[in-house]
Amino acid sequence: MRPLYRRSDLERALAPRSIAIVGASERPGSLGLRTAKNLERYAGRVHYVNAQYTALLGKPCHASLAALPEVPDCAVLAIPKAGVEAAVAECARLGVGAAVLFAGGYAETGTDEGRQAQQRLIDIAAPAGLRLVGPNSTGLANFVTGAHAAFAEFAPSTPRASGTVGLITQSGALGLAVSAAANTGTTFSHVLTCGNSCDVDVADYVAWLAEEPSCQSIACVFEGLREPAHLVEAAKLARENGKPLVVAMLGESEAGRVAARLHTATAVEERGALKKALESAGACLVPFAHLVETASFFAKAPSPATPAGVAVLTSTGGGAILVADALEASGVPLPQPGAEAMRTLEQAVPAYGARRNPCDMTANATSNHAMVDACARALLADPAYSALVLPVSRAINVPMFQALGEEARRLGKTVCVVWLSGWLDGPGTKDFEADPNLALFRSPQACARAIGTWLNRSTGERKP
Amino acid sequence: MRPLYRRSDLERALAPRSIAIVGASERPGSLGLRTAKNLERYAGRVHYVNAQYTALLGKPCHASLAALPEVPDCAVLAIPKAGVEAAVAECARLGVGAAVLFAGGYAETGTDEGRQAQQRLIDIAAPAGLRLVGPNSTGLANFVTGAHAAFAEFAPSTPRASGTVGLITQSGALGLAVSAAANTGTTFSHVLTCGNSCDVDVADYVAWLAEEPSCQSIACVFEGLREPAHLVEAAKLARENGKPLVVAMLGESEAGRVAARLHTATAVEERGALKKALESAGACLVPFAHLVETASFFAKAPSPATPAGVAVLTSTGGGAILVADALEASGVPLPQPGAEAMRTLEQAVPAYGARRNPCDMTANATSNHAMVDACARALLADPAYSALVLPVSRAINVPMFQALGEEARRLGKTVCVVWLSGWLDGPGTKDFEADPNLALFRSPQACARAIGTWLNRSTGERKP
Repeated sequence: MRPLYRRSDLERALAPRSIAIVGASERPGSLGLRTAKNLERYAGRVHYVNAQYTALLGKPCHASLAALPEVPDCAVLAIPKAGVEAAVAECARLGVGAAVLFAGGYAETGTDEGRQAQQRLIDIAAPAGLRLVGPNSTGLANFVTGAHAAFAEFAPSTPRASGTVGLITQSGALGLAVSAAANTGTTFSHVLTCGNSCDVDVADYVAWLAEEPSCQSIACVFEGLREPAHLVEAAKLARENGKPLVVAMLGESEAGRVAARLHTATAVEERGALKKALESAGACLVPFAHLVETASFFAKAPSPATPAGVAVLTSTGGGAILVADALEASGVPLPQPGAEAMRTLEQAVPAYGARRNPCDMTANATSNHAMVDACARALLADPAYSALVLPVSRAINVPMFQALGEEARRLGKTVCVVWLSGWLDGPGTKDFEADPNLALFRSPQACARAIGTWLNRSTGERKP
Repeated sequence: MRPLYRRSDLERALAPRSIAIVGASERPGSLGLRTAKNLERYAGRVHYVNAQYTALLGKPCHASLAALPEVPDCAVLAIPKAGVEAAVAECARLGVGAAVLFAGGYAETGTDEGRQAQQRLIDIAAPAGLRLVGPNSTGLANFVTGAHAAFAEFAPSTPRASGTVGLITQSGALGLAVSAAANTGTTFSHVLTCGNSCDVDVADYVAWLAEEPSCQSIACVFEGLREPAHLVEAAKLARENGKPLVVAMLGESEAGRVAARLHTATAVEERGALKKALESAGACLVPFAHLVETASFFAKAPSPATPAGVAVLTSTGGGAILVADALEASGVPLPQPGAEAMRTLEQAVPAYGARRNPCDMTANATSNHAMVDACARALLADPAYSALVLPVSRAINVPMFQALGEEARRLGKTVCVVWLSGWLDGPGTKDFEADPNLALFRSPQACARAIGTWLNRSTGERKP
């Protein structure tokens, strides 16, 4: 078994300086055209390969990989299965760094023929040091360089210094689905998919992103692994690099595992042991529905200066109960404020509210923003708290929340907004999502689990 | 202890023919003005009461309740606490049917003074048969008649013959938050809040909606009850009337219960026993974050003709795994298709897909809508299935989904769409939410739990 791939092994696949599209095309709907369109923002060199054209989309088109003016770092094989094996052999012969394989019909068919065809690709590529992504993959995108080497139209993102998530999904459709959060303010540096994972798999991607400066957390969803120990190794690498890793593992059920075999012909044996090992390595395991918001939280939250408790501040008493329930269930302490913060709450909050933690400022807070600001700053300044959680039923005075987020960062703390509304992407959510210092959760449970892991993780880091 | 309120007890509160606003006002931001604005769509008679005006908003304004041309069914007390007791006494003396109390500062303050003030309201109202909603309440809305007797601006809804949810929340802010789902296609008949619940409480509201034809399911979120047995009785009444009840109970934690005492001074003792009794009575207990989509599902799904299994059909293999995992965890059977449906899958689905249940049509299905339609109809027609679950990563060909929903209803079955996207209210979601025959879930777990309860519930109905 080969070792976990590291930066130098994957550089030509994940940060290519040149990309060839084999099967480039102008035919509407074709994978070749979709890939060419996706590469329009690419900072590197793109080459088209298709014997049927001499020019395409205003650029020259070459008859073969061998006819290109350079050996590309990465070749995207946007061609039917029938031509894939020969193209992979050509890549290996020429010294191409990586090939992205869209075609299906391999091991996932469950047939000997399919399995053998997949094995032949590995046998051709491995000796040449040619990395394979797929087969049965939708490709991968690096939004730092615009290397969107995929037919899937992942929503484009502009990575930033805080709050940027590197996304890894085995399934192309799930990559498309999850990364659609970019439309509502979430920022991604990469969307990396690997389909059947005959060579590069999600563990290799995690290792890459662990050492990648453009993202501040990693979100990973998968159904199968070549070698579970690789993912644990990659998780440790992520922890060593201070890069939080959030994992959603599919295939919990027998029905799900059968579906996985027919989807990518991959699986995970000894799931319980793997989960334990991942958690020991600092990863946060979540249900799929919580993946994005949890990863986004980790990309925004600085490691707590001193892991302490959490304060809850709200204008809705119902929201206070909901969030307190969830935090307590996740083992997160809700200590009472110190004397100084307490004085502020007693001055600012009406007597019929709750001048404690959780603090219910009552509906008065929806019009009295000075009250919210004073209470929030007092709680953020209190050494009893590492995080401030604000359950809201709608977004009022977003700039005040943003200023609180900045104050939290200055103090090495974090601010989470829990969105209680049934209007999930309603007014204000995009402002929260896009803010580098405000984590938005739509589920109190997801918020509590994330904070619980965040505090434990940090405590763990301090242990010898 | 008084018995559970029934229709005749609550008619003047929940379906009033006339409403007086005590403290009506033109002052911007005032509770009186907000209530008057909310009542603009009301089909009944509105009266303004405020000794400071003779006319308001183009209508006469009266000096007192006694000065009105009729005794109103319902009086909304949009006045500070100082005047509430006298106003309640006036309502009792005149024979007003119900009073809605916005003011806080009662039992939720945790003081003897507050508790005693609340008790005095009850002592005044009870002998006169005057129903009290609150105190510390944001009011209630009946969207059938437009009786939006609340200062909270619940998003207006137009109840329909299928898919309409009656919403009950003790907390006004949570009522506001949950009902905001109306902005993205969910339909509500009522939003009923009760704050401190000194008289009318959520159990009474459940009993009312159980016998109310305008909604097809009830969503209820609360932190405390006057008498837990009342809620169980109301749940049974709902079941007798074929009205599904979905419940989110707050105050699971000690911190949450403390917050609840300071919010509405209410609680639930023996939570475990209550949950068991509610589930035995057919209620579906869910986390708060799943409340709306679960209630909306129950409002749309006909009781299954013959409770059987569930079929999963998708173009995303990853989605198939996710949903299969969740369904199996909820004990929902995923039987294989019968011979006839199997023939259709084998003809329509590519060999490298999965021609079974869960059925993965592969990414081909995103452009080949005839394939989706044929497979979906074959699975819906198969007696092995009561429901068809469609995990989607985006909304393609919405009219086809809508036609499948209609076909399902014709067959006494149901269609659920599981939205896998991180763009939660993205394109197409509103079409799904608003369709009377399509239930939309954003979480595979919520979908699976709802279907599990739905099948059990129906099996339970058949037991002697």
